Amino acid sequence: MARKPTTQVKPKESSKAGRTSPRDAQTIKHIDDFAGGVVTASLKQREPMIEVPTRTLSNTIWDKKSRVLTMGDAKQDRTLFNVSQAKKFMQMLLHSAGTKDLINQQKTTSLRAMFYAGLHTIAGTKEKTFADQEESDGILEDLEVSLGALREELHIYAKKRGTMAGNITIIDTGDEIDCRRLGSGGYSVPGITEPDVIQFKKCEAKFVLHVEKDTVWGRFNEDKFWQKHNCILTEGSGQPTRGMRRLLRRLNKELGLPIYCLLDNDPWGHYIFSVIKQGSISLAFESNRLAIPDAKFLGIRAIDYTRCELPDDVQIALNDNDISRAKQIAAYPWFENHKGWQREIQGLLDNGFKMEVESLTKRDISYVTEEYLPERLAKKDWLD
Amino acid sequence: MARKPTTQVKPKESSKAGRTSPRDAQTIKHIDDFAGGVVTASLKQREPMIEVPTRTLSNTIWDKKSRVLTMGDAKQDRTLFNVSQAKKFMQMLLHSAGTKDLINQQKTTSLRAMFYAGLHTIAGTKEKTFADQEESDGILEDLEVSLGALREELHIYAKKRGTMAGNITIIDTGDEIDCRRLGSGGYSVPGITEPDVIQFKKCEAKFVLHVEKDTVWGRFNEDKFWQKHNCILTEGSGQPTRGMRRLLRRLNKELGLPIYCLLDNDPWGHYIFSVIKQGSISLAFESNRLAIPDAKFLGIRAIDYTRCELPDDVQIALNDNDISRAKQIAAYPWFENHKGWQREIQGLLDNGFKMEVESLTKRDISYVTEEYLPERLAKKDWLD
Repeated sequence: MARKPTTQVKPKESSKAGRTSPRDAQTIKHIDDFAGGVVTASLKQREPMIEVPTRTLSNTIWDKKSRVLTMGDAKQDRTLFNVSQAKKFMQMLLHSAGTKDLINQQKTTSLRAMFYAGLHTIAGTKEKTFADQEESDGILEDLEVSLGALREELHIYAKKRGTMAGNITIIDTGDEIDCRRLGSGGYSVPGITEPDVIQFKKCEAKFVLHVEKDTVWGRFNEDKFWQKHNCILTEGSGQPTRGMRRLLRRLNKELGLPIYCLLDNDPWGHYIFSVIKQGSISLAFESNRLAIPDAKFLGIRAIDYTRCELPDDVQIALNDNDISRAKQIAAYPWFENHKGWQREIQGLLDNGFKMEVESLTKRDISYVTEEYLPERLAKKDWLD
Repeated sequence: MARKPTTQVKPKESSKAGRTSPRDAQTIKHIDDFAGGVVTASLKQREPMIEVPTRTLSNTIWDKKSRVLTMGDAKQDRTLFNVSQAKKFMQMLLHSAGTKDLINQQKTTSLRAMFYAGLHTIAGTKEKTFADQEESDGILEDLEVSLGALREELHIYAKKRGTMAGNITIIDTGDEIDCRRLGSGGYSVPGITEPDVIQFKKCEAKFVLHVEKDTVWGRFNEDKFWQKHNCILTEGSGQPTRGMRRLLRRLNKELGLPIYCLLDNDPWGHYIFSVIKQGSISLAFESNRLAIPDAKFLGIRAIDYTRCELPDDVQIALNDNDISRAKQIAAYPWFENHKGWQREIQGLLDNGFKMEVESLTKRDISYVTEEYLPERLAKKDWLD
């Protein structure tokens, strides 16, 4: 099929344009400074250069004091006249212009749509600006670290996933939402949960219970656990999204609510907890805004097999991959010298099997909400 | 590890027990009749037998009149004294007892938890009642068709996924939820959306726009599309769950709202539409309660590449699998003699590439909400 000329449409002025928040104004200033540096260098006939903090494991530091994963000081230069760097240099400028347009229009968009927005064929060549979305996503992460702005502050969101219900009223983009009155469905947590999107209005809840699966959340919500125990109930449908992690962190930091996690007794459950608590390597530069060092792991614990008198039907044998993952996680700097976690992971390996939260169903359908959780909470029996 | 005795705990009386709805009372009657037949046969010293409608492609019929996939009349006998059938026979009785307990307790649960609930080691043997969850899920589907009861009527839900916002007020388990005031997040659609869980209270909306992805939903919600066009906005995060399909069908049948679908221009998008509209082979026995024969496919259309003057950057080459899937879908009985769909699928094959909804971003971030959709609707330009 013959190539057609690329349609170039200027972003329209949005009716909301101009009403930028202080946060947006600051982000735009960062983008302008960033682009301005390039322009200034060009005008002075110096080679334009961008410094990008290095996002690799070797530049990831476990900060004992703040108890989160952070990024070290290593930086990479990207210059326009270096053949191997020129493409990334231009891609960063392209996406920085795209994010500025977004903010000016007061709109948000997805990583996928950003990829499309930045994608075009470079005039006079057959070269595309991006090979695929992965390349575009990487450049957006480079931009985040270079600008010191969260992706959400650049008006870009990842997947929306996860649910909330409980004793809290929030304001979401002007709408007051009473999370006590959302039936069996709940509030669908958006991709961006920054303070200018979501404000906390009235909260009686004393803690947050975060569970791994929507089906487990359903059990707790149906049993009105949050009502009986005065809390907020959230679920992440697996590893929580950035939006969910930011929300949990804000509930912890701004409202002082403890975050208790109910996850499976397997390496994946332990990993999810580790990410919630300490941050992840790939997003170490965001830990200070995403990690919750005070989060607690309530269960399922390896000892629950005997403690809760579960039948052997609940055993799911560990495979080789589980065993090596468990050992990797035990060697994480924040677990390495933590007696409780060493014992817990060893307990999993000694058991030789994993257990899911659903295994407690063997006792009774509501055992987890009526006995297990209340007992763990009363005894302060958790891992931190 | 030594085997421990299986803990057998009798289901507790729930505080809600006894308050069974007419629907629940009827489901329990079906279960009792089902089990009663087995008991009666035993007492009369006849071999207990269960008749299970056959859930296979060969027993799936395209019903031209009702325009949905339905199940034929073929049935399989399952008898207790036939070695190859005895296990499935017992499994069905086991799960029928489990679902009765659930209904009596007025609780709902997940497929996973049902698997655990039914799982135990048969006394005096090393045999488990179920090899894995897949076996348990299959038995639950057998039970659905044998009892003529939806899985949701057995109080069992699949995954909860999908979001709704727009000009409607619903009641969900007693809570009144104004879907016009749910901010950027929206209402998280539960796994069970039957009339005794969700009632429609006040609806001004004139139609439902269902989109494939949460990120696209975010664009429409942020642009307040549902406000400007007086509609309801839903997303299924891929193939919609049973809960979402039931909700859409109820909005269509009970409120008379047209259901318009905005999906990708690829075989997956076409397949999702086919499932929404005609039902799926594996759930053909549910079509009369899940399918929406009047649903319309609004786009993306193969012609949009030229019609919307999109640049070639949006082209994603079809692979061999896409091509064979497209041909399979074109041969579906409900598409086979449908000129519009034949043209549409041929258009995809002639293009040689797929396009995502996000490709419209190349025109403008809000092109899809401000121009594309309004134009399609005004021109009644859709495929049914």
